[in-house]
Amino acid sequence: MDFIKNRRSVRRFAARPVEEGLLRSLLEEAERTQTMGNLQLYSVVVTRSDEMKRRLAPCHFNQPMVTGAPVVLTFCADYHRTSEWCRCRQADPGYDNFLSFLNAATDALLYCQTFCTLAEAAGLGLCFLGTTVYRPQDIIDTLRLPQLVFPVATITLGWPDEAPAQTDRLPLSAILHEETYQPVTPQTIDRDYAAKEALPENLEFQRINHKATLAQIFTDIRYTRRDCESMSQGLLDALRRQGFLS
Amino acid sequence: MDFIKNRRSVRRFAARPVEEGLLRSLLEEAERTQTMGNLQLYSVVVTRSDEMKRRLAPCHFNQPMVTGAPVVLTFCADYHRTSEWCRCRQADPGYDNFLSFLNAATDALLYCQTFCTLAEAAGLGLCFLGTTVYRPQDIIDTLRLPQLVFPVATITLGWPDEAPAQTDRLPLSAILHEETYQPVTPQTIDRDYAAKEALPENLEFQRINHKATLAQIFTDIRYTRRDCESMSQGLLDALRRQGFLS
Repeated sequence: MDFIKNRRSVRRFAARPVEEGLLRSLLEEAERTQTMGNLQLYSVVVTRSDEMKRRLAPCHFNQPMVTGAPVVLTFCADYHRTSEWCRCRQADPGYDNFLSFLNAATDALLYCQTFCTLAEAAGLGLCFLGTTVYRPQDIIDTLRLPQLVFPVATITLGWPDEAPAQTDRLPLSAILHEETYQPVTPQTIDRDYAAKEALPENLEFQRINHKATLAQIFTDIRYTRRDCESMSQGLLDALRRQGFLS
Repeated sequence: MDFIKNRRSVRRFAARPVEEGLLRSLLEEAERTQTMGNLQLYSVVVTRSDEMKRRLAPCHFNQPMVTGAPVVLTFCADYHRTSEWCRCRQADPGYDNFLSFLNAATDALLYCQTFCTLAEAAGLGLCFLGTTVYRPQDIIDTLRLPQLVFPVATITLGWPDEAPAQTDRLPLSAILHEETYQPVTPQTIDRDYAAKEALPENLEFQRINHKATLAQIFTDIRYTRRDCESMSQGLLDALRRQGFLS
C-alpha cells in the first residue's frame, strides 16, 4: 500500500483518455465498500463531454481541473433510487429527513474514497473538489438531480501530467485521543502545528498575503466567516429543496 | 487490490490484541488522505478499556461488536482543534456553521475509509457502525467531545474470528449516470433489483417477517419513517448543541 504513503493530489492531466472499461471496473469494484443496510445510498454522475464540463466549471469556481480532466465524477447522496424501489414494491419510504441525508452522504463519501484508492492504485491521478457543497444548487440543476439526490463530492480524474511535491500532515498526536477527547491547549497547539508553520512555503504564503500568522490565511482569506455563513445558508436551502429537510 | 474485491464486514474477533504500534502506523498512514485546505478537520477517539466499551455499547444499541472488539474507533468531524489553533494565532475562526460541519464530516469520513482500507490490507477485520449518528449526544457525552467536534463514524476493529459470506451488491447500472441523472423507472428498478430480491436469504428474511416485499423490511422494520424522523430531530439538536447550527 505504498502508493497511499506516496499519494498527492493531481491537478494536471495527460491527453491520454481514461478507458471506459477501466473506469467502470473501478467504480464496480468500489461497490464492495460497506454501506448502510446494504442499500448503497449513492450514485455517480460521469461527465466526459466538453459541454457538460463547461457547464460544471462555474459551480466549482472555475477551477481549471474541471475542464482540463478527461473525466469528472460527481458522487451523490442518493435516497431517490431506494425510495422509488420502495414505491414499486408496495412499501412507503420515509427518507425525506436529515438523518437520511447524513446516512446517504456517508455511504457516498465512503464509496468515493474507496474509488479514489483504487484509481490511484491503478496509476490514475485525481483531485477532490471541496467546492461541491459550496454551490450545490447549481450542480443539482446542471446534472438534473431529482429529489433526495444531493452532490457531496467531485473528483477530477485522469492520467497524471505532473508529479507535485507531497504536502505536509499534522503529527498523529494532533488527531488521536485515548479513551476520551483530550484538551487542546496552547501547548498541544505549539507541539502539533510548529512544523507546519515553519515550512518555507507557508512562510512565503504568509508574506505575500501580508498576514502575521498562517492561521490568518484561513480565517481572513481562504475560509472566512462571511463566506462560510453565506454558503451554509445556500447549502441548507438546497437540502430543503431536494427534500432532505422537511 | 484483491482484498477489496473480497472484503466483508467482520463482527467476531479473535482474542489476539491489536498492537498499539500497528494501530498508530495505520492511523498515521491514513493521514495521506486528501483534506480540505490541508486542515485535517477530523480526530479519532480510541477506545480500548472495557469500561469505556461498556459505556459506548448502549449508544450503539448494544450491538455486541462494541464490547467484543479489541479496539473501537470513533471518527469525529473536528473544527475544535483548528479553531483553537486560530485563537492561539491571533486569527478569528468562523466555523460554527453547517457548511463547516459538512466539510469536517467529509474530511473525517474520507480519512476513516482510507484507514479501513489500510486496516483490511493488513489483515484486520472491521465493522462500520452506522448507529453513530442515531444517538450522537450520548456518544458526545461519553467521549467528552467539546464544541465543534461531532462523531460521524465508528469502527470496531480486531483480528477476524469468522469468514462470513460476502453480501450482494447492485449492478453498476443502478448507480452510474452518464452526463446527467437518468430517470429511475419501474423498468430500471426491475433490472437493478431483481437479483437482490431473488436471493434465498432475502426471501427467507421476508418470510419470517411476514412481509410481501423485501423493500417493506426496510420501510416497516429496519428504517421506519417514525424512527428516521425522531432521530433526525435528535441529530439536529446535537449539531446545534455542538455549535454547528448557530
